[in-house]
Parts: sequence; C-alpha cells; structure tokens
Amino acid sequence: MAYDGTDFSGWARQPERRTVCGVLEDTLARILRLPEVRLTVAGRTDAGVHATGQVAHVDLPVVPEAYRLNRALPGDVRILGVSTVSADFDARFAALRRHYTYRVSDAVVAPLQRNHIVAWPRPLDIGLIDAAARTLLGTHDFVAFCKRREGATTIRELQRLDWRGDGEVLIAEVSADAFCHSMVRSLVGALLAVGEGKRPLDWPAKLLTAEARSSEVTVAPAHGLILTKVDYPADADLAARAAETRNVRTLTS
Amino acid sequence: MAYDGTDFSGWARQPERRTVCGVLEDTLARILRLPEVRLTVAGRTDAGVHATGQVAHVDLPVVPEAYRLNRALPGDVRILGVSTVSADFDARFAALRRHYTYRVSDAVVAPLQRNHIVAWPRPLDIGLIDAAARTLLGTHDFVAFCKRREGATTIRELQRLDWRGDGEVLIAEVSADAFCHSMVRSLVGALLAVGEGKRPLDWPAKLLTAEARSSEVTVAPAHGLILTKVDYPADADLAARAAETRNVRTLTS
Repeated sequence: MAYDGTDFSGWARQPERRTVCGVLEDTLARILRLPEVRLTVAGRTDAGVHATGQVAHVDLPVVPEAYRLNRALPGDVRILGVSTVSADFDARFAALRRHYTYRVSDAVVAPLQRNHIVAWPRPLDIGLIDAAARTLLGTHDFVAFCKRREGATTIRELQRLDWRGDGEVLIAEVSADAFCHSMVRSLVGALLAVGEGKRPLDWPAKLLTAEARSSEVTVAPAHGLILTKVDYPADADLAARAAETRNVRTLTS
Repeated sequence: MAYDGTDFSGWARQPERRTVCGVLEDTLARILRLPEVRLTVAGRTDAGVHATGQVAHVDLPVVPEAYRLNRALPGDVRILGVSTVSADFDARFAALRRHYTYRVSDAVVAPLQRNHIVAWPRPLDIGLIDAAARTLLGTHDFVAFCKRREGATTIRELQRLDWRGDGEVLIAEVSADAFCHSMVRSLVGALLAVGEGKRPLDWPAKLLTAEARSSEVTVAPAHGLILTKVDYPADADLAARAAETRNVRTLTS
C-alpha cells in the first residue's frame, strides 16, 4: 500500500479520527459487505508519516481485486498489490526488515513536494550528518531514541543509515530489523542537530549508553518520513518462521 | 516562482478568492509597507495549474531578498530568485517561449504525486498519442483548441509536443511562443482521446482547419499541468525588443 500521511491521524484506528487503517477497514467492509474487517500491519506509522511500500494482512472470504479497492478508496491511499498468503502469514511478525527514507532541505522546498520534504531553517552539513550516522550502525539499545511502548524491546539492529544529497535535498535511507516508536525521527533529529553544528559529531553515539529516553533529542517532523519497503522471507521459510513467531507470541502474551 | 496550484483559484486576482497573484501582491505590499503592488506575469495559469518556473515583474522602490519573501509566504508558493532588470523589461511581452509539462497515468497514481499527475480511468497508448502529437507541430491557427479571450490571436507556433513514458506515467513536454487560453489542456485532451482509441490518429490535425473552438475537444484536467520555464532574450536584445513591444502595444491598444 501507499499513502500520503498528510490528512491522516496516522495508521492506527482512533475514534473520531481519519486514520489509514480506519479508511481501509471501513472500505473493505463496505465493498465486501462484511460486518467487520481487521488489518494487521507491518509498521504502524504516526500521524503525518507517509508510505510507498506498507504491507498488511487480512483474513477475508474472497480476494478483492486491487483496482476495485482503489476505485472505492480516496486518492491519498492506494493498494499497489494483493496476494493470497498461507494462513500462517503475519504481516507484522513475519517481517524481517523495514526500510524508511527521510527527506529534508535547508534550501527552498519545491511547493509540489512540501508535504514530504522538511524545510530546515538553518544550514546543514551533510558530511557531518553522514559521519555521525555511521557511528550508530549495529545492534544497540536505542532506548534514548524511543518513545516507550508497553513491553516492546528497544534493542534493535540498525542495518543502514546512509545520507546522500539529491540536488538541494538531503535523503536518508534507514533500515533495521524493526524500529521502536519514533526511532527513525529521533535518530534524524539527533543527526540534524550535529549537521547544523549544535552538537558534536560523537554526541548521537554517546546517547546509545543512556538507559532511558533522552529529553535532549528532538523528534524530527513526521512529514519527511516515508515507509518504503518491508522485507519478508521467501515463501519456503515463512511457515517455519510463523511457527516460531507463534511460540514467541505465546511466550510474550 | 514555483507554486502548487491545488489550493489557488489560479494566477489572476479575483475578489474573495485565494489566488497566486493576490497572495504575492498582498505579501509584498505588507512586508515592504507599500499601499499597493502590481505584478505582471509571463503566463496567467488557470485554477489548479502548477508552476516550477513562472516569471513576473514588478516595480518596487527596493529589491527584496528571496529568503525574506519566502519566510512571509505560505509553503505552496516560493520565490526561486529575484533579479533587477531594466525599466523596459516586461515579463509578459518580452517572453520568447513558454514551456509546460503535462503528466497523466492509466495505472495507479502514487498518493504523494496525485496533485500533479492525472489518473486516467482507461488504458492509454503512448505510441498513438505521440504520433498524433507530431501532426500538430508548427504554426497554425489553434482556434479549435482555444477558449476565446478578447482580442488575443489564436495563431501560435507549437515548437515542441513530445511524449515520453517515465515508469507508468506519461509526460508531455510542450513549448510554444505563447499559448492561447486553455490551449495546452485542449491539445492534451484531444491527444488522450486518440490514445484511448476514441478518435482516429488524424483527428487532432483535422481540427486545425476549424474556424471556431471545437465543442468535441475535452479540456484535460488542470492539475496535470505545470508551467516549467519561460525563455527571455539575452540582456543585449531586451532593450530593442522592449522598444518594439511598446510600439506593438501602442498599435494594439
């Protein structure tokens, strides 16, 4: 799925709010004439965050065609593909890796792109940002960069955090096995503080030794963030992984 | 200048409407503390049409800096540059050539790009569209493709009308000395009728012999259109051209 997060209060259903999950579930229920539909998503995105490669699973009596769903959905959310999977498949627990991009510019942001590129009010040094980013790679307790969620681990493997310039836009490519809540935006916020000279190059890495969320880290604006891809194991590995996941879920529930 | 036309009722000032010209003139007047500011623009774009390379001139007692203007403007309009020109310069009459792009897709339109790519509900054949486009090049009376405006000529030189595919998006590059009202969108509308098989390949060219606007031509949606560039002569030629323009304006007024 792809969506423009601008006019959504994030993925997760909330009463009285327009959410991606709410719009999708209600549309599915309506066109399939079902009393209720429940989606399980790979990555619950916050308000304002976009997606070009989000994945969710749902149990349905029929397989709806993507074009039919898209005709019924508003233009800010689109189904890119539909496939049938084994009953074991779980979009959240079977996911091996999540990929995000973050876009920010200290120059003039093109009006047609202002909903997904953050306009930064001060000059940014991409060399400093990229050097500091490299010090964060690997498996760490990212608790300093996490908004606490009940029972969720903050130990993650940050596999990629590359910055490149595309014209006057700075683009980060960020990949991990999973991210804790607000982690990508907190990492970006810390790196932008380095990039504008407010913090030294070694400051983000020092935060990795913290034992609680750091109040010094500013969460970067939501609208620069896009969930671009979720990786799953090949079909052959899914069943085994699903069995393992069931055990984990039983153990943690 | 660049703007996202989505939330504007076009360029031209209208009472009680949010227009690009109105927002720019009011902002300039406010930050420069002038009673009134009047812009002259190269291409008056319709409601919903975007720009990435619009040009206007204005007579001011001081030269405001672009970053100061942009701080005062809403995010859907941006000044890309400011230069001082001779008193003779006229953004409209000195323009040699206007360049537009038009974007349309018969596949799923990415939510983040839906404000500037038109979702076409039926399959389009880019080969047919491009072949028909080539038959329209050159100097013709485009009256069949023009909404009449008092006193404006409909004889134009269509210098470029190239179509290319970018993934699942069809992009037209359109250039002319000038365009009459709704001409680009009417040309695109006629070509899309060919591209979806509703009209034969030679139909658009046959309209060039019409003596009035054709009711058979559908104007393609505004939000696919972007004014990308306006060409002006080198400084050395401007003065001569300005003098000539003054004569023309005197003769035609």
